[in-house]
Amino acid sequence: MTLDAVDTPALVLDLDVVRANVAAMAALADERGVALRPHAKTHKLPQVARMQLDAGAVGLTVAKLGEAEVFADAGVDDLLIAYPLVGELKLARLVALARRVPRLAVALDAIPVAEGISAALSAAGAGLEVGVRIEVDSGMRRLGVAPRSGELVALARAVDALPGLRLEGVMTHEGHAYQSSDEASLAQAAADACELMVASAETVRAAGIACPVVSMGSTATARFAAGHPGVTEIRPGTYVFNDRSQVAHGSARERDLAAVVVATVVSRPSADVACVDAGAKALTSDRMIVRDAAPDYGAVAPAGWAVGATARAAGWPVARASEEHGLVAVPDGGEVAVGERLALVPNHICPAVNLFDAVTVVERGRVVDRWPVAARGRMT
Amino acid sequence: MTLDAVDTPALVLDLDVVRANVAAMAALADERGVALRPHAKTHKLPQVARMQLDAGAVGLTVAKLGEAEVFADAGVDDLLIAYPLVGELKLARLVALARRVPRLAVALDAIPVAEGISAALSAAGAGLEVGVRIEVDSGMRRLGVAPRSGELVALARAVDALPGLRLEGVMTHEGHAYQSSDEASLAQAAADACELMVASAETVRAAGIACPVVSMGSTATARFAAGHPGVTEIRPGTYVFNDRSQVAHGSARERDLAAVVVATVVSRPSADVACVDAGAKALTSDRMIVRDAAPDYGAVAPAGWAVGATARAAGWPVARASEEHGLVAVPDGGEVAVGERLALVPNHICPAVNLFDAVTVVERGRVVDRWPVAARGRMT
Repeated sequence: MTLDAVDTPALVLDLDVVRANVAAMAALADERGVALRPHAKTHKLPQVARMQLDAGAVGLTVAKLGEAEVFADAGVDDLLIAYPLVGELKLARLVALARRVPRLAVALDAIPVAEGISAALSAAGAGLEVGVRIEVDSGMRRLGVAPRSGELVALARAVDALPGLRLEGVMTHEGHAYQSSDEASLAQAAADACELMVASAETVRAAGIACPVVSMGSTATARFAAGHPGVTEIRPGTYVFNDRSQVAHGSARERDLAAVVVATVVSRPSADVACVDAGAKALTSDRMIVRDAAPDYGAVAPAGWAVGATARAAGWPVARASEEHGLVAVPDGGEVAVGERLALVPNHICPAVNLFDAVTVVERGRVVDRWPVAARGRMT
Repeated sequence: MTLDAVDTPALVLDLDVVRANVAAMAALADERGVALRPHAKTHKLPQVARMQLDAGAVGLTVAKLGEAEVFADAGVDDLLIAYPLVGELKLARLVALARRVPRLAVALDAIPVAEGISAALSAAGAGLEVGVRIEVDSGMRRLGVAPRSGELVALARAVDALPGLRLEGVMTHEGHAYQSSDEASLAQAAADACELMVASAETVRAAGIACPVVSMGSTATARFAAGHPGVTEIRPGTYVFNDRSQVAHGSARERDLAAVVVATVVSRPSADVACVDAGAKALTSDRMIVRDAAPDYGAVAPAGWAVGATARAAGWPVARASEEHGLVAVPDGGEVAVGERLALVPNHICPAVNLFDAVTVVERGRVVDRWPVAARGRMT
């Protein structure tokens, strides 16, 4: 079966490219001697998780208990829930997960959160224990305690003392690095974040507390963080599929784009516009994670994607979008007709995957499978 | 059961407010003598569709065949698929729908699309017929033929002549009106769009072709369009729940907000920030549909929402967000603690509903139901 038999819009994975991306990041981690713990929020697919683990990943990172439950059901035995778990409903589910996942860890940045988790685990009895990564703010100003701070040491000391918790180390999401405007500043932002994290681990160790793990997380910085002395783990997510933002940041080449949204031209309202049936409900409203990015919604894929009229429309931006309409800017002399198909690259692939109930899997142009996005929409 | 027993983030509907919104729009349409055909993309819920139809709506508008199939399954017998249907896969499904939906119509803006639908219906035999609304561009520059144009007349003539098609009239989505900066300019934009549409219908009629329907669609313009001479139908969607954009446009009051995302504070990384567990994966990345809107992701709901710390945090913006993190800006002296809950109003409720598998329904503070979002994620 070819893609022509799949209705649009469809999220399509090129399996060979996924395999190559998985292998390349595994090789990088292996060469540099760091653990690889991919963030599964990008793919939300047990099939891709298995490929990552088979290639050498030590385990997975997830954002939600619901995602952890899906991957635990799929047999993954090492999971980091990189999110502060707050509230009785979530703590009860954490306890249930701790009973069945051999290696389970959580991230947190405050003593009350640690106390809540410890109390829930202790109340459940049976010597349940989860690992803890202390989230440190390496510059993004999202979550996390200040690097090298007294607050960090106090939190580490509390975690170290609380029953049911095993302090594993420190982690960060250095997402602010995506604001870098060129390769040199990106490398510098990554190095600065790594330095803060290594120094934070040293601060904890200087207080007499074991802090083995120094974990960095983002695809754009992975190639720098993996080689940084003192960093022990990387948690990239997007690398497995890549997107326009990653290409813009130099963390992926065009040929590393593994996922596209295949859409159909449904109207040519004017010579300079082609309306396709993929709008923000398929591509999201996310802008490129690039400084001063154009306010568009994606672009036609590189010519290598042998989908409909893609080769002759490669690079045309989805200049405007509403939920069900993508308005592709057609340049002077550009030709595309109603009924023709275009492969589109989202600005940010992770939330786009979350919009689809299933992905269509192709291998050398043939449709070989259809995978339900098993961890899609896990809100809690 | 109270909301405390529902985990966060949760999409919560206040049933009394939904009822009031449904009744108010039905009363407006009734008073002004226009048909009401709500766009069901906002709610995607058969339960709400039933309320709208019981209050007097003539039928529903949907964007996708998959949505039409869900509402047909729920017994809705009058459906407009307001989207050009292109491709054999979609046409086969349209034929199947035409066999079971007593009153089915589609929108289109080009002769080849009309020819494709006609051919599919004719090939299926048995005198199948669907209504056709010609989409006219009243100023949004998305889809549609030019108002009063020769292209419009040619398309109307083609539809009128093609077997299986019954020309019902003209329709538009006057979404450009959302760019108006005040009530007067919004009223003017609505009036201008209505005038173009009425004139377009007259142009078709002057060519000797029946064109009974003049259909306008948007919540912000509904109160103007319903009273405009010659307009026969309105298709508002968002009014049923409302959102920050509608309040900003004066098409809803704060007390008309029927849907919120209830979130939990998971971190207080600094005095001026509260991090909640609803980010772009719950609120979307949609900006306010308002000219020069602040680039934020929603705001804490008005004090009337008796959810956690909402009353004392009313109006605080979700200033930044990533997929799973919403960063609420806390003003000087503002107080909110980890573990407390906040009700958040999305900028744009329609795509937010599409992110949730189910909605929690409350009535006077009690949880009375949980409705699966039956038409969520219908891509095709």
